[in-house]
Amino acid sequence: MRIEIPRDFERIGALQIFGLQKVYELDSGPGRRERDSMIERLPSDTLYDIMREMAIVVPVKEERLKLIEGVLVGIPSPCQVILVSNSARSPIDRFHMEQETMENFSRFTDKKVLVVHQKDPTLARAFAEAGYSEILDDDGLVRSGKAEGMIMGTLMAKWLGKKYLGFVDSDNYLPGAVHEYVKEYAAGFAMNPGAKTFVRISWHSKPKIVESNLFFAKWGRSSVHSNHILNRLLTNITGFETEIVKTGNAGEHALTLDLALTLEYAAGYAVETHHFINLLQEYGGIDRPPRNLRPGERVTLCQIESRNPHMHASKGDDHVEDMIDASLSVIYHSRLCPASLKAEIMANIRMRRGDNAPAEPFPMRIYPALSQIDLPTFFERWQAGFRRHSPVVGSS
Amino acid sequence: MRIEIPRDFERIGALQIFGLQKVYELDSGPGRRERDSMIERLPSDTLYDIMREMAIVVPVKEERLKLIEGVLVGIPSPCQVILVSNSARSPIDRFHMEQETMENFSRFTDKKVLVVHQKDPTLARAFAEAGYSEILDDDGLVRSGKAEGMIMGTLMAKWLGKKYLGFVDSDNYLPGAVHEYVKEYAAGFAMNPGAKTFVRISWHSKPKIVESNLFFAKWGRSSVHSNHILNRLLTNITGFETEIVKTGNAGEHALTLDLALTLEYAAGYAVETHHFINLLQEYGGIDRPPRNLRPGERVTLCQIESRNPHMHASKGDDHVEDMIDASLSVIYHSRLCPASLKAEIMANIRMRRGDNAPAEPFPMRIYPALSQIDLPTFFERWQAGFRRHSPVVGSS
Repeated sequence: MRIEIPRDFERIGALQIFGLQKVYELDSGPGRRERDSMIERLPSDTLYDIMREMAIVVPVKEERLKLIEGVLVGIPSPCQVILVSNSARSPIDRFHMEQETMENFSRFTDKKVLVVHQKDPTLARAFAEAGYSEILDDDGLVRSGKAEGMIMGTLMAKWLGKKYLGFVDSDNYLPGAVHEYVKEYAAGFAMNPGAKTFVRISWHSKPKIVESNLFFAKWGRSSVHSNHILNRLLTNITGFETEIVKTGNAGEHALTLDLALTLEYAAGYAVETHHFINLLQEYGGIDRPPRNLRPGERVTLCQIESRNPHMHASKGDDHVEDMIDASLSVIYHSRLCPASLKAEIMANIRMRRGDNAPAEPFPMRIYPALSQIDLPTFFERWQAGFRRHSPVVGSS
Repeated sequence: MRIEIPRDFERIGALQIFGLQKVYELDSGPGRRERDSMIERLPSDTLYDIMREMAIVVPVKEERLKLIEGVLVGIPSPCQVILVSNSARSPIDRFHMEQETMENFSRFTDKKVLVVHQKDPTLARAFAEAGYSEILDDDGLVRSGKAEGMIMGTLMAKWLGKKYLGFVDSDNYLPGAVHEYVKEYAAGFAMNPGAKTFVRISWHSKPKIVESNLFFAKWGRSSVHSNHILNRLLTNITGFETEIVKTGNAGEHALTLDLALTLEYAAGYAVETHHFINLLQEYGGIDRPPRNLRPGERVTLCQIESRNPHMHASKGDDHVEDMIDASLSVIYHSRLCPASLKAEIMANIRMRRGDNAPAEPFPMRIYPALSQIDLPTFFERWQAGFRRHSPVVGSS
């Protein structure tokens, strides 16, 4: 892979945010690692070395099996796959179908796939006993939701001893795009070898159907809003206007386990934007000194522009406004958000919602950082009740 | 890459046609090459070794520069790229724009790109003096057409000393699909290491817009017809009904230079189907013994089903019927085509064309095999007049 060296950056306390990096070559072959003043060449072996320490979490909910299989085809073999499913168990046991598909696929490919169900009572008990019952609902099981699945995936990655963690959606139509995302995660970690690195992908484009033709839109409808307001927040903090944030709600992202365990997770549609906010709160040194850092350590956020268009199964447009509201809510309710920016956010909501605008954004549920979990207890409880769901953990 | 070992095959004389092979993993990482009874694992290094001896020919005609750049992003670095352009030189010099784009891109990526123009008079003179003036028009320049560009690309690959030759269209929207095709070419050559191997890709699907939704069609409209009639031809030859042909007009294909120089090229839309017919004529041993073979040598045609959907710039639907007619024409006019199959072909044409059906298909222009060219003369003339069009041949 050949990737542009970032040209811009913003430094806020211990947090370093790099500008968007362009990809010049998906596959630069094996050989030497090289860089000039503009481009870094990451040979295949450098990327594979990182992938061997990486888990890719794929949250699944009632997705077509053909699409899930295509996503697995795209994930490079050295990666550990963790499939966190919240699909129905009755009247049709979709989860069982997913397990069978994975079992079949893993047998053919020797792929390392761990399959867990979000409502597995063993996991719920492990959460309860390890001091993280926030994630449980009234039935004592893990709540439904993608953020909750991501939290489970994060812990599974830690359990498996991985160093890096990436997320890929299960509804991607392009195995080649999945392949690209994972290589870009690895490239981001290779270029930023610190213990606390966050890699976020900005899609090159998203094909939409406009009057029976394909049109390649540069920006998603919700990312326009979250990027703008996050940039306004940075502008407020630094006093210099900036447009550096391009990945405010990047579903395709990866981070070191070391960093992941220190971050809060917002529920619903706000998880990605809140990660951004939480990085600023924890490491920006704005209203309190950064914590969880070794002397001299910094946190790096890099943003890579993928080359493939993003094509995923269309779930309808109903939730776009809710997604925007959720993203803006976590910015609004952050302790870093000044009154002037709160006013801008409300103007945005009123513009989109009209008379239905609330007095202030509905606050999102925020899960505390996983560092508060008693990990040895969690893993012990989980392992004790762990049943082999599937071929599960392949050989490493 | 992990690929299914072919389960079916047809053997006709020295020609071996393998059934469609499924891809199980785009990237199986580095390490050992392995196979069990069903799947072969081709590690990255095996594929890179082949790519270093491979040229990828990209025919271009007035394509948007963004799309061409995306195609180059997808071609792995070890490959030599040969861009054969037939874009206009006036009133706007599109070719010059393409050269500049390539020059810029090659500088950033250290990519090996040779750019030639189809109407380059040096090339025309080289063809004339080397005994292949069939390709020249009344002005003494190379005729317009994709087949003619492919012939030029083939000779350029030979000139550069390459062993393998692959074709990729310049209007592909998915760099990841281009990347996949090239890896599949390399995998096909690795699995079939003979000197005469042909690798043809069958698209997984082709997204179409149907009532404002994306629909993933399995088969292109023209390939249905050419596959069916080619299978009818094989059935006639062997006496056993077969459906083995899935890539009758596969634009995405690759072949060894050794084989490429022995095959005829049909003009217009018939080039891919005619390659199939010509393989049967030359190596099937049906009406005469195979030629151009070393003792015991055979010719292998393998067909791989790609995983990414095929998305290319829509040029309108006007030419689909012409494409079908062209494909069927080369089968009809083959000396191998029995009268009964000619009747089937005419029934097909009458069904599609109605009252506009001709008495028999219009014959396509067929260029003789390149083995009739005096290669030393061609290369000498070309090299003598060769001007550096661009960064051109990068370091190898």
